[in-house]
Amino acid sequence: MMISGEPNNWGRFGPEDQRGTLNLLTPPVVLAALASATEGRVLSLAMPIRGSTSSPAPTTVPHLRGRPLPQHFMSVDGGDYAAGTKPVGAGLRVADDALIVTHHGTTTHMDALCHMWSGDELYNAHPAARVRSYGAGRCGIERVGGVVARGVLFDVPRHLGLEHLPADFRIPAELLREMGPEPQPGDVAIVRTGWPSVWRRSPEEYWSGQPGLSPEAGRWLATRDVAVVASDNAAIGGLDERQLATEALEDDLHLILLHRHGIHLIEMLWLDELSASGRTDFVFMVAPLAIEGGTGSPVNPLVIL
Amino acid sequence: MMISGEPNNWGRFGPEDQRGTLNLLTPPVVLAALASATEGRVLSLAMPIRGSTSSPAPTTVPHLRGRPLPQHFMSVDGGDYAAGTKPVGAGLRVADDALIVTHHGTTTHMDALCHMWSGDELYNAHPAARVRSYGAGRCGIERVGGVVARGVLFDVPRHLGLEHLPADFRIPAELLREMGPEPQPGDVAIVRTGWPSVWRRSPEEYWSGQPGLSPEAGRWLATRDVAVVASDNAAIGGLDERQLATEALEDDLHLILLHRHGIHLIEMLWLDELSASGRTDFVFMVAPLAIEGGTGSPVNPLVIL
Amino acid sequence: MMISGEPNNWGRFGPEDQRGTLNLLTPPVVLAALASATEGRVLSLAMPIRGSTSSPAPTTVPHLRGRPLPQHFMSVDGGDYAAGTKPVGAGLRVADDALIVTHHGTTTHMDALCHMWSGDELYNAHPAARVRSYGAGRCGIERVGGVVARGVLFDVPRHLGLEHLPADFRIPAELLREMGPEPQPGDVAIVRTGWPSVWRRSPEEYWSGQPGLSPEAGRWLATRDVAVVASDNAAIGGLDERQLATEALEDDLHLILLHRHGIHLIEMLWLDELSASGRTDFVFMVAPLAIEGGTGSPVNPLVIL
Amino acid sequence: MMISGEPNNWGRFGPEDQRGTLNLLTPPVVLAALASATEGRVLSLAMPIRGSTSSPAPTTVPHLRGRPLPQHFMSVDGGDYAAGTKPVGAGLRVADDALIVTHHGTTTHMDALCHMWSGDELYNAHPAARVRSYGAGRCGIERVGGVVARGVLFDVPRHLGLEHLPADFRIPAELLREMGPEPQPGDVAIVRTGWPSVWRRSPEEYWSGQPGLSPEAGRWLATRDVAVVASDNAAIGGLDERQLATEALEDDLHLILLHRHGIHLIEMLWLDELSASGRTDFVFMVAPLAIEGGTGSPVNPLVIL
Repeated sequence: MMISGEPNNWGRFGPEDQRGTLNLLTPPVVLAALASATEGRVLSLAMPIRGSTSSPAPTTVPHLRGRPLPQHFMSVDGGDYAAGTKPVGAGLRVADDALIVTHHGTTTHMDALCHMWSGDELYNAHPAARVRSYGAGRCGIERVGGVVARGVLFDVPRHLGLEHLPADFRIPAELLREMGPEPQPGDVAIVRTGWPSVWRRSPEEYWSGQPGLSPEAGRWLATRDVAVVASDNAAIGGLDERQLATEALEDDLHLILLHRHGIHLIEMLWLDELSASGRTDFVFMVAPLAIEGGTGSPVNPLVIL
Repeated sequence: MMISGEPNNWGRFGPEDQRGTLNLLTPPVVLAALASATEGRVLSLAMPIRGSTSSPAPTTVPHLRGRPLPQHFMSVDGGDYAAGTKPVGAGLRVADDALIVTHHGTTTHMDALCHMWSGDELYNAHPAARVRSYGAGRCGIERVGGVVARGVLFDVPRHLGLEHLPADFRIPAELLREMGPEPQPGDVAIVRTGWPSVWRRSPEEYWSGQPGLSPEAGRWLATRDVAVVASDNAAIGGLDERQLATEALEDDLHLILLHRHGIHLIEMLWLDELSASGRTDFVFMVAPLAIEGGTGSPVNPLVIL
Repeated sequence: MMISGEPNNWGRFGPEDQRGTLNLLTPPVVLAALASATEGRVLSLAMPIRGSTSSPAPTTVPHLRGRPLPQHFMSVDGGDYAAGTKPVGAGLRVADDALIVTHHGTTTHMDALCHMWSGDELYNAHPAARVRSYGAGRCGIERVGGVVARGVLFDVPRHLGLEHLPADFRIPAELLREMGPEPQPGDVAIVRTGWPSVWRRSPEEYWSGQPGLSPEAGRWLATRDVAVVASDNAAIGGLDERQLATEALEDDLHLILLHRHGIHLIEMLWLDELSASGRTDFVFMVAPLAIEGGTGSPVNPLVIL
Repeated sequence: MMISGEPNNWGRFGPEDQRGTLNLLTPPVVLAALASATEGRVLSLAMPIRGSTSSPAPTTVPHLRGRPLPQHFMSVDGGDYAAGTKPVGAGLRVADDALIVTHHGTTTHMDALCHMWSGDELYNAHPAARVRSYGAGRCGIERVGGVVARGVLFDVPRHLGLEHLPADFRIPAELLREMGPEPQPGDVAIVRTGWPSVWRRSPEEYWSGQPGLSPEAGRWLATRDVAVVASDNAAIGGLDERQLATEALEDDLHLILLHRHGIHLIEMLWLDELSASGRTDFVFMVAPLAIEGGTGSPVNPLVIL
């Protein structure tokens, strides 16, 4: 038997559902951010979503071990027409598909403020008990709307003359401070570790741990009032070989940024081209899918150099 | 038994996989487009993705009849902790989820060039036989990268003093020409029909047909060399009560724009706030998920007024 | 970021995971049940699972309104080979697929004892708080194992000379008693309403309500110690036009049978051939998928006449 | 845009869709098979379907490497009520769920006759071009209906005094012949290799190869006119460390049995309890889900000892 569950709180679709941009990103800040575009070159910072059930293809893209990988299915395709499927009407042919994705740990994604907490409250004292099976009634990813901001890149391995940081490297605040440019309120701070490049060498090595921000570096970014912290690793902070953060609760990067400061996170970026550009500030844009009550969204962040 | 299918053509993930922006959107065009932002206000043009298996919630968002609606599942949530699930480590609590989405006809989305064709060739003579069950080997949505362009709004119902166009209204080119601003090469032309507002009154009426561009209006936009045509209806052109386009093949809007001119399409936009702004040109950005071989992607397009 | 949730309670796979058959179905009862097979003819009582994203096909099979219908995808198929996909090795060709199914309300299925309750306890005082996002830690469908029993058919419309019962008909216990054969402990009682035949005439009429057992009839079956109650309607009891049971809690059929007596339910059977056979007792078998922590399973029940 | 694909061939649901049992399983054969039940004890031969996105639980059940594992989601559960979700009506609480499964290589399943072929024709000259993205128009799993037959067990490792066969062991026909009981037309031949027990020791060892039937043993079973060949390994025949069959096309076990003889296959059985019973013949039953056009189905086969 099927019985309708609790009536949702969201009401009928309409203007009252419209979402805003992040708090710090007021129109003047957005306008100012656009001035960081000097070349007009647009780069995507997303890894491909490579899905299939009949080939090992998705396993060729960096991901955390044990997570269900994206599945992508064609419900009608060119093969069907080759096999004799009749066109629609006078001759239209169509390809259609479906996507199953669990973005955390498997692809470039943005975390909603409901993704992690301690105790009984989410960011800003929203009750965690409102995060239920049918979606987060508080702090869902649909609240983000879209982000247009200045992005500043901390290319740590390039600064240190390395291809990538070692797995146990925890980036000190001091290093961020000396690299510049100093992040301004509302900026998106992008931290490069170079770790995705390890994947091509060996998934096993990729899974052996991950470099990331130190707690003090996280706190320093938080005090700069950045709107978003973004990284090419899987968890902003580092991970051990069990894929877990090892900091104490007080020092956990997700709790510092997401939970205590309401700073959104973007993880598993692809930063090779951005690094090669040599640019350290630019326009940054990200528009998570408006999944109501979602804990995050797969995203394709763009920069304009 | 499971046997690996055809080895994929995509190789290991790496720089060679990186995608570019649409052809017309050269860096100078992008830079020029940014000048259209005068206020700095950011609007999302996406409808919410409202998923659930235990409530009729998704049915409260406009969609075509008969399509599988989005499903959104929480794999761990606040309810589990309320019921006694132990936190991770010293006290971390986490919410995680999964999304199943078939975007055509169900939510705001962008069409890839492999989505529709006639005969045996996709846009630009790519063989349709390369569009297979494991994804489109040609013209997949991952080729888009991201779009940053000037957007120009054709707010047809507002121009005509209507809340929305009638279901059988096919927008003539003449009307677009007289509304201005004239689209420039590389612009994103956004056509508003107002049809989503009908949903709140009655899904049955929403399904009774849809207004859209006339073939000649589609051709006129194509000759303006726009990069993208976007609309708040489901199919750029109009639909009849069976949800089918009724034009002859020669006049089919998808074939005119997508197939013959390689002009990407974005459908099922939410344009109420943009219409209310009174603005007709602005910065437009869309970043489809990099689904390899995808026929399109759910998107959250942004404008900067 | 992804963090492993609570360690599951299920341990590594092994003999300790093996499941048993339902309590009443002791070996002697099973052996005795087999004697009900006199012809050796096997019938399937399942409706087809008809899935597709690009056609309205699934909507041609009876289901409750608003539930997500099954989706079935081919990840490689004959069309791909027609389009040029190379065989595996020396010439093997393979078709592979995936299924997404939410069985309650959409297809022939069996309910687990965790599917419905009132208060804080499942059947037999198992704590409802153990039914969490990662599955039911108590009373999941994997506990069933398999059912082999005598089945007895109450073909109510045939008894009354009707094609199907009216939507508001609630079958009285008296009617079951007078129809015979009297169910014995361990039997599977199958109740036919004929309602699926309405679907072909009109889905709207199918959704206008459903006939079903009256509370007293449910109680009578419970006192007969049947192992399973099965029906061709969607909820054993009747439904109103909102697809809800209208009985008070005390009289709710799911609570009477599933919650208070631990009697499993099977719903949405296809009984036309069984009815036409004229047989009222036979061997009945059902083997739900061993979905750990599942609230039920799609099933294909068989009878041997 | 969404356009309905090719109209399906299946028509509206009705009696004309009803499926039959396998050819050899005539009513007299079924009746005779039931005589093999002497104790009345029912055993399930299925491995659990263990799904989750937030835990590595599914990885604790034997499966082939690289296949997408089952995903199981609760759309409403006891945790939601613990967190404050209101009951339905006067106090009903409900748990509901969804399952995503790609059964080949991940769980106990039955292969349809459309699952594998060579050349352009399926079994019995059905055109392979009818196996398309929206399902197999020929030889789909829904054609099986249900199987009730005598099962005979070839417990090869027990016969040889081993816990399990070595990875490179290919069972010769001679061994089957000497073990008895000789399979009769319409029997289900169950071949035990013991390989699943390796999983508990080491998934890596499980993936290092698999023992299975030799081609001549497959041919011998085919000449015995068995209705089904079932096994606890993943592919009836053996696999190498790449999880591929290494026989030439002429000798491929799937082609011998499924393609040339129309003998259905069941793979990834759990046979420990059956082996421990010491029984070699019994009643065997399997009822695949009636997935229209499916290449197979997850199943929970039962035996009655």
